[in-house]
Amino acid sequence: MATSTTKTGQPLDRAAIDSILRRRLFYTPSFEIYGGERGLFDYGPPGCALQANIVDMWRKHFVLEEDMLEVDCTMLTPEAILKTSGHVDKFADWMCKDPKSGEIFRADHLVEQVLEARLKADKDARGVKVDVDEAKEAKKKKKITHKAEKLDDALVQEYEETLAKIDNYGGDELGELIKKYNIKGPSTGADLDPPKAFNLMFQTQIGPSADKPNGYLRPETAQGQFLNFQKLLEFNQQSMPFASASIGKSFRNEISPRSGLLRVREFLMAEIEHFVDPESGKKHPRFAEVKDTKLTLLNRKTQLAGSTKCDEVTIGDAVATGLVDNETLGYFITRIQDFLLKIGVDKTKLRFRQHMANEMAHYAADCWDAELFTTYGWIECVGCADRSAYDLTVHKEKTGAPLVVRETRAEPLIIEEFQVDLDRKKLGPKFRKDAKAVESAVDALSQDLREKLSLELEKSGKIEVPTPGVGSGITELEKDLIKIEKRKRTEHIREYTPNVIEPSFGIGRILYSMMEHVFWIREGDGSRGVLSFPPAVAPTKVLLVPLSSHADFKPFTKQLTNRLRRVGVSNKVDDSSASIGKRYSRNDELGTPFGITIDFQTVKDNTLTLRDRDSTKQVRASEAEIIAAVKSLVDGEETWEDVAKRLPAFEGQEVN
Amino acid sequence: MATSTTKTGQPLDRAAIDSILRRRLFYTPSFEIYGGERGLFDYGPPGCALQANIVDMWRKHFVLEEDMLEVDCTMLTPEAILKTSGHVDKFADWMCKDPKSGEIFRADHLVEQVLEARLKADKDARGVKVDVDEAKEAKKKKKITHKAEKLDDALVQEYEETLAKIDNYGGDELGELIKKYNIKGPSTGADLDPPKAFNLMFQTQIGPSADKPNGYLRPETAQGQFLNFQKLLEFNQQSMPFASASIGKSFRNEISPRSGLLRVREFLMAEIEHFVDPESGKKHPRFAEVKDTKLTLLNRKTQLAGSTKCDEVTIGDAVATGLVDNETLGYFITRIQDFLLKIGVDKTKLRFRQHMANEMAHYAADCWDAELFTTYGWIECVGCADRSAYDLTVHKEKTGAPLVVRETRAEPLIIEEFQVDLDRKKLGPKFRKDAKAVESAVDALSQDLREKLSLELEKSGKIEVPTPGVGSGITELEKDLIKIEKRKRTEHIREYTPNVIEPSFGIGRILYSMMEHVFWIREGDGSRGVLSFPPAVAPTKVLLVPLSSHADFKPFTKQLTNRLRRVGVSNKVDDSSASIGKRYSRNDELGTPFGITIDFQTVKDNTLTLRDRDSTKQVRASEAEIIAAVKSLVDGEETWEDVAKRLPAFEGQEVN
Repeated sequence: MATSTTKTGQPLDRAAIDSILRRRLFYTPSFEIYGGERGLFDYGPPGCALQANIVDMWRKHFVLEEDMLEVDCTMLTPEAILKTSGHVDKFADWMCKDPKSGEIFRADHLVEQVLEARLKADKDARGVKVDVDEAKEAKKKKKITHKAEKLDDALVQEYEETLAKIDNYGGDELGELIKKYNIKGPSTGADLDPPKAFNLMFQTQIGPSADKPNGYLRPETAQGQFLNFQKLLEFNQQSMPFASASIGKSFRNEISPRSGLLRVREFLMAEIEHFVDPESGKKHPRFAEVKDTKLTLLNRKTQLAGSTKCDEVTIGDAVATGLVDNETLGYFITRIQDFLLKIGVDKTKLRFRQHMANEMAHYAADCWDAELFTTYGWIECVGCADRSAYDLTVHKEKTGAPLVVRETRAEPLIIEEFQVDLDRKKLGPKFRKDAKAVESAVDALSQDLREKLSLELEKSGKIEVPTPGVGSGITELEKDLIKIEKRKRTEHIREYTPNVIEPSFGIGRILYSMMEHVFWIREGDGSRGVLSFPPAVAPTKVLLVPLSSHADFKPFTKQLTNRLRRVGVSNKVDDSSASIGKRYSRNDELGTPFGITIDFQTVKDNTLTLRDRDSTKQVRASEAEIIAAVKSLVDGEETWEDVAKRLPAFEGQEVN
Repeated sequence: MATSTTKTGQPLDRAAIDSILRRRLFYTPSFEIYGGERGLFDYGPPGCALQANIVDMWRKHFVLEEDMLEVDCTMLTPEAILKTSGHVDKFADWMCKDPKSGEIFRADHLVEQVLEARLKADKDARGVKVDVDEAKEAKKKKKITHKAEKLDDALVQEYEETLAKIDNYGGDELGELIKKYNIKGPSTGADLDPPKAFNLMFQTQIGPSADKPNGYLRPETAQGQFLNFQKLLEFNQQSMPFASASIGKSFRNEISPRSGLLRVREFLMAEIEHFVDPESGKKHPRFAEVKDTKLTLLNRKTQLAGSTKCDEVTIGDAVATGLVDNETLGYFITRIQDFLLKIGVDKTKLRFRQHMANEMAHYAADCWDAELFTTYGWIECVGCADRSAYDLTVHKEKTGAPLVVRETRAEPLIIEEFQVDLDRKKLGPKFRKDAKAVESAVDALSQDLREKLSLELEKSGKIEVPTPGVGSGITELEKDLIKIEKRKRTEHIREYTPNVIEPSFGIGRILYSMMEHVFWIREGDGSRGVLSFPPAVAPTKVLLVPLSSHADFKPFTKQLTNRLRRVGVSNKVDDSSASIGKRYSRNDELGTPFGITIDFQTVKDNTLTLRDRDSTKQVRASEAEIIAAVKSLVDGEETWEDVAKRLPAFEGQEVN
């Protein structure tokens, strides 16, 4: 799928949808009257309502349906936490500066753009017709082009291999590539400064006494959930497994934001941390309910072979064959798909892509991204990773807080092990201030070492124990001080660090991609854009259109708007002087699924016409029937086809 | 009202409610396992649900009911915007540092604490029994006390006067007070450094190219709304008045956060900017609907007289007498009250306090705070200010963006004025590069000056025109170049900058104060805490309590939980082994308004008992009837009294 098409098969013109989204104030660049600030966007009324509806559905679909523990943690985060999590050291991109112009580039993007331009120039020179990959082109902030120029065959292959691995290079390697391929500042031709790591977190100073930045804006909502693990487990009455969830803004100081709403510096996330016993095999009690769900999967092996061919498989099979690591991961992948389809995503533009081994964090067991196809290409919109026990472990080690589950064993566990007894009465006088350190060193001895030392002790009557920080680092202990014996111990409590399965949603990316998926052009006079949002998601559910601003219509409009509001259906009145057709077409752009016309017949007999946005078909019935129909359409209890079957069609005047 | 009482008249013990709120994870200090960070708190599951419900009700009560245009703007804000708004220069508190200990104090708070301690010591010395104002005491972070010590009568009066004016002092004045009253570092006795302004915004660096902080986290959501004014007006089809609204986090880098959830560094706000034509008299079309609403008002005059006696008046009277400046402001004040009462605020603990003249921003026309009484005293929770045209004007002046309304006049306006004609053909050759500047200077001449110059021109055939930047700054123009005449002009369009009425809600403060208002102790064995949230606000609506974890109950519980969820009623199951009484008491602390018991009778005939949290009374009926009753209770269609009348009481076993 090289280019994107609308749901009706028309080529999808990004400029057309973008113009509507901006004109109808779905979104707008922030601070525009001040010249704007890249990577920051505001949502206007329809975008804001859309976002609120999606968040509301997310909360119902995940938090309520699965009894998750929702938390709301702060965005301001002290440095220590993000140091432990690894973000201070590793959450960075490589940037390089053109010393002449002061321009700053993301090093990997720059290399990518230049090599792609050269490859294209090569194809031009060879007379190969290039099927321009619009998606890739569109990704480029600034198009870098070259005149037709043939390259060595070997170099072409080298470029192609480099491009395939572009996500995996570090700063030094990118610097070498820039030198090797003679890549210069695009606008100046100057030699570029070597790549420098740029941490993507926004730094700030919390409190008046700090003399340098001591905190950050969070890069993800996950850390707040991990830090509260103990309290959440207690809230859940010590019962495992359970999930926490959080909806809130996170921040990423992009070097060079591009791709509109897809790569922004401040974004809404919804994240779930599902805590599970690693010894449970990560089974999921509701897996049976979803096992026959079909998914489009792009696995790791296929990608390694350089292909993007997806498999259509049931999640039951995917888990059974080991393609998806475990039931819990599989369960969430299908739940993610259900959610995306419910809010309007096109199933033919959804795939789950498995991370390559080198793409995943070293601790991750498996990871699948839900990717949505857009005019920008396949975009990662939801990540679903098995983070293993990494985060809880590092925070536990750093703080000593018991981020663990302690549960009574059904059967006590009997352990045979080497135990050490020290004669503390003799230890103190002998080692004085070092006594404590010697004791700790002995306690820390591994079972293997204990076994070896016990034999040694028996043989020679004394042993040498490694005691870091005491004397030479080796301390001699004699038989009268220490005893090492193999004994049995009964353990009634099991203590373990849970593993975490993390579905993580970028709401803004989902929202934008979905808007592309539901957009199409109604052919006819003027070919008008339509956003076919599902009723549950649509910013406004019904548009009320009085025939004119005639005073006779006002009481009917007012009554209707109040009655609709009372049954929870959001609606807007448009009593402007524009023609009914124009008013409906404006609302097609706003994605309002239903329209109600109030006309002279209404004044006589209190009947109304109800119009369906997608088919532009109409029915006519009493006010009560129309309200009931709208309510049932919005709640998803009936489709338009159902309603059109029960209520008399209205052919009086067709309103596009 | 010196001390706070519960809704049942018991003294309100803050430690008791706070212990429940933390134990039940309504909230918890952020980053606690890392030692915490002052002024930052996380909401756990019940706090989070409470917050989501309040936000949802706010959106319905204001945005939907009044057809407001909701926007979601970024928190990251470039410096230029906040420079224009005045925040960079003026959004600061005065801090002073103890050079010996490095401690930092808010200067006004320190002076206040020391003088209050001395006054108390004086009263002790005089043997006056002090009715300790717990609220004020509680505000103090660190209690500063003095031994009984009598002061001069004159000094007592001076201290009292200083305290009354403490909010109005600047840094120099605070510094003088500290010297004059010999106030030292509380823990060291050292001389304090002079007060320094500390800007309360969090600074950060947006993008990789900035070499110093170039942005802030927003201190309010208002600015984003102002900057989008033009687009919002267009979205509203140029129709005035209208309101925008925004719900989101704002930030304030408090010098020394205290008072728990009431003074925090990151907080959720909900703000409305209602744009209104200043020449409309700020009338409001729905004012008639609210005019008989009674309010508790503490006006400016009363406060000036040193009293806090409130008046109970209708908003109609308050506006008619000029006490509240205009209808729009009055309308919003009553709507704020309606909202607060709906979510559970105690009307006897709500007052509206008018700002003193020196408390208001210089541009504000009038301002009223909704204050809620808590164990911390009266707390400002909602501000309702008339910001006049200030913000739109400063941004318009800074950027040149037309943040104005242009409307066609019903009657064209005929203006008689002095108009200037320049002979451009002669102007160019004569003034060359200065021609443009001369033309602008002439255009900018005021009507008064034009009148004077026209007479002069007639008399002497030439005039001297001030032309800043051209030659000496005065340019001579002769008759052949310039003509000044009085003519009539017809103006069809009126252009004006709207005024703004701004209701601004601190959601966290409202949430905490409301929790204090609905808290009480159920006397009886063990005296248990109850949070009597209104059903619409309660984190969970129903607790399902199977008699035991017996397998027979499970299908009934599962069916019930699904059916309740389907009608939109959030519920939790507690099938732990604790006694039913214990389980209900746990949920009293969580504020769950209803409980349903599933017992052996249920298994036989599918009937259930429904328990009311506040009265602990129960009714018993069929599953369908119980579900319908719960739905109607949660939607506010019936009260418990209504339900208890229709359904048979269940006396079988009383469950407290």
